[in-house]
Amino acid sequence: MQDRIHTADAEPGDDVTVAGWVHEIRDLGGIAFLILRDSTGKIQIKFEKDEMDEELVETGLGVSRESVVSVSGAVEEEPRAPTGVEITPESVEVVAPADPELPLDPSGKVDADLSTRLDNRTLDLRKDDVQAIFEIRSEILRAVRERFREFECTEITTPKIVATGTEGGTELFPITYFGEEAFMNQSPQLFKQLIAGSNVERVFEIGPIFRAEEHNTPRHLNEATSIDFEGAFCDQNDAMDVVEGVVKAAYEAIAENCSDELEALGLEDEFEVPEEAFPRISYEEAIERINATGELDEQLVWGDDLPTEGEKALGDDVGGHYFITDWPSEIKPFYIKDHDDDDQLSTGFDLMHPRMELVSGGQREHRHEKLIEGFEQQGLDPEQFEYYTKMFKYGMPPHAGFGLGGERLIMTILGLDNIREAVLFPRDRQRLSP
Amino acid sequence: MQDRIHTADAEPGDDVTVAGWVHEIRDLGGIAFLILRDSTGKIQIKFEKDEMDEELVETGLGVSRESVVSVSGAVEEEPRAPTGVEITPESVEVVAPADPELPLDPSGKVDADLSTRLDNRTLDLRKDDVQAIFEIRSEILRAVRERFREFECTEITTPKIVATGTEGGTELFPITYFGEEAFMNQSPQLFKQLIAGSNVERVFEIGPIFRAEEHNTPRHLNEATSIDFEGAFCDQNDAMDVVEGVVKAAYEAIAENCSDELEALGLEDEFEVPEEAFPRISYEEAIERINATGELDEQLVWGDDLPTEGEKALGDDVGGHYFITDWPSEIKPFYIKDHDDDDQLSTGFDLMHPRMELVSGGQREHRHEKLIEGFEQQGLDPEQFEYYTKMFKYGMPPHAGFGLGGERLIMTILGLDNIREAVLFPRDRQRLSP
Repeated sequence: MQDRIHTADAEPGDDVTVAGWVHEIRDLGGIAFLILRDSTGKIQIKFEKDEMDEELVETGLGVSRESVVSVSGAVEEEPRAPTGVEITPESVEVVAPADPELPLDPSGKVDADLSTRLDNRTLDLRKDDVQAIFEIRSEILRAVRERFREFECTEITTPKIVATGTEGGTELFPITYFGEEAFMNQSPQLFKQLIAGSNVERVFEIGPIFRAEEHNTPRHLNEATSIDFEGAFCDQNDAMDVVEGVVKAAYEAIAENCSDELEALGLEDEFEVPEEAFPRISYEEAIERINATGELDEQLVWGDDLPTEGEKALGDDVGGHYFITDWPSEIKPFYIKDHDDDDQLSTGFDLMHPRMELVSGGQREHRHEKLIEGFEQQGLDPEQFEYYTKMFKYGMPPHAGFGLGGERLIMTILGLDNIREAVLFPRDRQRLSP
Repeated sequence: MQDRIHTADAEPGDDVTVAGWVHEIRDLGGIAFLILRDSTGKIQIKFEKDEMDEELVETGLGVSRESVVSVSGAVEEEPRAPTGVEITPESVEVVAPADPELPLDPSGKVDADLSTRLDNRTLDLRKDDVQAIFEIRSEILRAVRERFREFECTEITTPKIVATGTEGGTELFPITYFGEEAFMNQSPQLFKQLIAGSNVERVFEIGPIFRAEEHNTPRHLNEATSIDFEGAFCDQNDAMDVVEGVVKAAYEAIAENCSDELEALGLEDEFEVPEEAFPRISYEEAIERINATGELDEQLVWGDDLPTEGEKALGDDVGGHYFITDWPSEIKPFYIKDHDDDDQLSTGFDLMHPRMELVSGGQREHRHEKLIEGFEQQGLDPEQFEYYTKMFKYGMPPHAGFGLGGERLIMTILGLDNIREAVLFPRDRQRLSP
């Protein structure tokens, strides 16, 4: 459809062909308007019933909402039209008629629950605000990759079909792989480490991860997008620098390139790019500050994991993104390195948004013997992971990295209530289709 | 490790700390050299045995190959050194010693078979030429996405866990999803169409696809990277324009940004960016030209699929990339639209490299009734795909798209013998780990 132009490009004085969906028909009697919508916006098509070809008027005004039409005609200035221009049609073609009974109203005038929306995602995505979320998602992915490249990272792709999970057999979806037992990977953790141990040194991957968690909450997905980094000769502080750069890159790109989308979401006034450095708060300080808020019934003691209410209290206290560093070793997974001078204290860190955890990272255990001990302490059989551990015998440099939840990033940036709104076709405990 | 610099950044006159792998130790008697390697290259560390601290010399020259060392010292010009500079060390620290028995020689002096290489990918990636493949892979992904964005595409992510495969139950890996039967997706086909039918209009996705094919050949993978495009208000010619732009973008980016990598692969002289338009040859003309080569024992007739030898003969005849268009409808899947004036002739196309097929695409069937007929003709139950077909009742615009095999693209660009060389951790009939 080579000669079609976007509605946003229709200039007064031009003869154009536009094509899109019938957003609305406004019949004022002698005059009527068809509002045509495409990816770039909407345009008014004017029908003067007594002055125009009868068949043309019938076609243009008889068409059902959400049908696809192609309209050719002259663009004219019209200050009363929503975009300041309108088209007087010379021809109208119904390209794809829509059933008049729509399961969802893309004009947004009738609310639909999330489940109906997800069942009818094509129609749902015709709403400006829903489209805006996914245009922003696309922009976030672009900006994050660009920032990773500024950090001299190479983009990698690691396998999603694996023989063993990162942390053993829990929370894995089993698959049958030519008669063998295999799993869908829950994290690129082990693979990205194997690459960071080579000349490639610094890597990132943005890809799907799969977790068979039974949780069915507004912040959990069983298939999610993980934004992963791993860097040789990096420690946890370097990894935190990269996290901070990447998260800020997402905000900065939206501020720079997505003003229309922010407006569609009603966020044009409240959207803010975090300017300050993200504070790095030790776990020890975190529990002190949480206890000081008085929000918890029971005081936290060293060694406790942080309960959701505790994170919330601290998030309110800090008022923005912050890191929690220096966690007790026993709370963090075996592949996180302990501090050299204190084996009860790990180099693990989390990046927190006031609403939830976004990132988990740390320096990795790169010493072969210590790694084997770690597997055993975690109750895992190191032999099952030999494909991974054996590479630690041949010059594995110190390295650090993180995993950032892609949908949580989008959700917190845009203030979405439910993480499913950040995914085109979410997978959860109940939802496997579409 | 904040004060470490890359070897490529070591300038004469500077006091620096470099860290990397021990590539080689050359002992000439009174003088010896440690060649240290990192992601940016190699640098010579000079040891003058009689003039330097004994312990320093012992540490530096006693370390095994592929150990990780950190070296601090002064950089000096030295025309006889491989990079024109060398470091006189003030300190040498062995950061991670390597077992002297290496399963693979990263200096590349001893050949290893592909299976050994894949089993020891960390070591394998320390070879310049192997590293180069994956630096180029990363650059291809960047360039391809950038070109898609120039075509006004939005990046999307579609689910990899699905209730039904694109083309029914064949060649799917089954998974157990909370007690329900599900599959790993073999193509984002149906999902990308559902998005193209919304305001988003033009989309691309680069992600994993999974095919339980029994083939175990140098050009098949069971987990591969698919580069997908779908565009509303596009026909097959528009889709071919996008394919051509994207494939050329990959070549152009390599020519512009990967000269070191091409040199590492020995391709600096033979690498060429395709400048000419890719010829669009109809299926009918293709079989005539194949028959005319006399390479096949039996002449092809209209309706035959093209045998590999036929593709090869035509590829040699054309001498570069080319499209085969206007395939017989019955060879192409149900979702490919037929020509309006001939329902035996489809709008499907393939992009061929002389060595193999890279892309399959076409205009899609957007009419609900015809789509249902297509499912039935293919022996599929349309009810199982209702989540997809029902959206075609609500104003589905004409649309077209394609899927491009990411590893095949890399393989043909770099002239790799085996597609497994284009993947960090390939999955095939036998290989599930690492």
